Amino acid sequence: MLSRKEKYNIAVVGATGAVGRRMLEILEKRGFPLDSLTALASARSVGQKLPFMGSEIEVKELQEDSFKGIDIALFSAGSSISKNYAPIAVNSGCIVIDNSSEWRMAKDVPLVVPEVNPFALSGKCEIIANPNCSTIQMVVALKPLHDQYSVSRVIVSTYQSVSGSGQKAIEELENQSRNFIDEEPLENNVYPHQIAFNCLPHIDSFLENGYTKEEMKMVNETRKILDDSTIEVSPTAVRVPVFYSHSESVTVETKLPMKAHMVKDVFSQSPGICLVDNPEKNQYPLAIDASGKEEVFVGRVRGDLTRENVIHFWVVSDNLLKGAASNAVQIAELLIKPQSI
Amino acid sequence: MLSRKEKYNIAVVGATGAVGRRMLEILEKRGFPLDSLTALASARSVGQKLPFMGSEIEVKELQEDSFKGIDIALFSAGSSISKNYAPIAVNSGCIVIDNSSEWRMAKDVPLVVPEVNPFALSGKCEIIANPNCSTIQMVVALKPLHDQYSVSRVIVSTYQSVSGSGQKAIEELENQSRNFIDEEPLENNVYPHQIAFNCLPHIDSFLENGYTKEEMKMVNETRKILDDSTIEVSPTAVRVPVFYSHSESVTVETKLPMKAHMVKDVFSQSPGICLVDNPEKNQYPLAIDASGKEEVFVGRVRGDLTRENVIHFWVVSDNLLKGAASNAVQIAELLIKPQSI
Repeated sequence: MLSRKEKYNIAVVGATGAVGRRMLEILEKRGFPLDSLTALASARSVGQKLPFMGSEIEVKELQEDSFKGIDIALFSAGSSISKNYAPIAVNSGCIVIDNSSEWRMAKDVPLVVPEVNPFALSGKCEIIANPNCSTIQMVVALKPLHDQYSVSRVIVSTYQSVSGSGQKAIEELENQSRNFIDEEPLENNVYPHQIAFNCLPHIDSFLENGYTKEEMKMVNETRKILDDSTIEVSPTAVRVPVFYSHSESVTVETKLPMKAHMVKDVFSQSPGICLVDNPEKNQYPLAIDASGKEEVFVGRVRGDLTRENVIHFWVVSDNLLKGAASNAVQIAELLIKPQSI
Repeated sequence: MLSRKEKYNIAVVGATGAVGRRMLEILEKRGFPLDSLTALASARSVGQKLPFMGSEIEVKELQEDSFKGIDIALFSAGSSISKNYAPIAVNSGCIVIDNSSEWRMAKDVPLVVPEVNPFALSGKCEIIANPNCSTIQMVVALKPLHDQYSVSRVIVSTYQSVSGSGQKAIEELENQSRNFIDEEPLENNVYPHQIAFNCLPHIDSFLENGYTKEEMKMVNETRKILDDSTIEVSPTAVRVPVFYSHSESVTVETKLPMKAHMVKDVFSQSPGICLVDNPEKNQYPLAIDASGKEEVFVGRVRGDLTRENVIHFWVVSDNLLKGAASNAVQIAELLIKPQSI
């Protein structure tokens, strides 16, 4: 339970990473009421300076005593750090908002997208999990459809950017693209195959059932967030040569019939969604337009050609912002809201 | 009706284009029995020399009398050229294999993928249509499933390369990629938006129903080729920053139940298909591997998580070869086979 204050002591664990840096940016941009901000990372980043509020903040080493006096810690340093340090932070009296997959499916851990299931924060909150990036943008779009028409089935193919694999993947795409055009040899370090000018139907590791972990995250997290274990989710997760923002081609089946124009109305009135759907003007969501923005962009909304309970759409969002940093900061905002404490 | 000969006089219309050049390559590679080869194009390409059979062939201007003495003309010069010149070629006693969309849905025009519906050539053949590239690779994979399990519904999201838009699009992706990395301004000429490091859910023009022409081609051509107007097809066609080969994420529903391992067996024994499906070794079809090859590559075959009559897979093929030139030359091969005349 968070004590009510005017300003809070916040720590960011993994502050030097792609998501960690954006957590700092978003805390600043959204005017989060900060008493102090502590940037934590591994020993090798200690002393590094990160831009914050027109000045700089020095990175400190993540240690067991790092959480004394911290109210909320935002973790984005990978699963093993979260596994080890989230309980330590909780024992120090701190609430953890964790961006890794480590705690997402744990029974007592709320898995929260503020536009979708803010009420999941009403119970005991020690660790709160931030969902997978490709799940977040999809459930923001699914939620209003579920409320209105009752979603029974989702078939989704993703077009995921390399920034989801971190800074080294961004550099790999850049280097490979340049070398390919210059007819120089390419190096694959982050991905098992060339990502420049190619599509890899492979994100995270493969499981026995033929699906990847990324795909199963979309199945299991969607059900947990929408609190409906009957929703069928069939995902194909694909990495594409895009730097920032994930795109998704989504087919939704519902129990009640839908009309495309009514679904567009629903989307246009839903929190966190920006409807971009004027194909006659070549306007639809694009990864390059969504990058750096916090909304989930939806377009290409159209009814199925034969089924009145099926709709297809295209949804795009910045995987480092709404897919990670912004969602985590929004959760922190909910925690400090008087009515939610 | 084609007179049986030992060698044939072939013309390629649009010989200087991306597909036309590959038609020449494939005629040579597959050892098509040629008496003569005539390369035809518009006036501005006249005199241009194209490599052929270790030598060069000079491009002639497409004119009304170009088809005298020609047995088979392969057209790949756009819909308006096909509309005007295919009937002229037919009147000269020539069989036309047309790669444009102009004649595909015409009642008396067979729409042929040799592995799928060779019998469509058994009637009167004057103009024979080559299907859309994204349809061809999909129906090669659907056909054996349709035969075994009876396909009722297909949901497909495409990842289509820029070579489908011609040589200028290839140059646009190359130039934009270089300029983006060098932080120079980008120019959009072929596409309405930046294609480098971006995904465009927009191929061909938009129709009243919210679908694109490309998407509706996949719907209508699939039904015509599989000769089953009840098959439901729900496509989302997306352009990705890849030079060659289209990838597709396909979900298939059938009337009979399937098991993933049996579907893999079916694929591995089907003509024109190369099964690449060892995820534990990071082996699955890739655009960069399919490019320059004539097969359709299928992988990531997996059963649905809840439905026993649903399967998901990933299919990749070179859109300029099996999606265009190779399929056209295969049709020509069928025409000259003794048993098919």
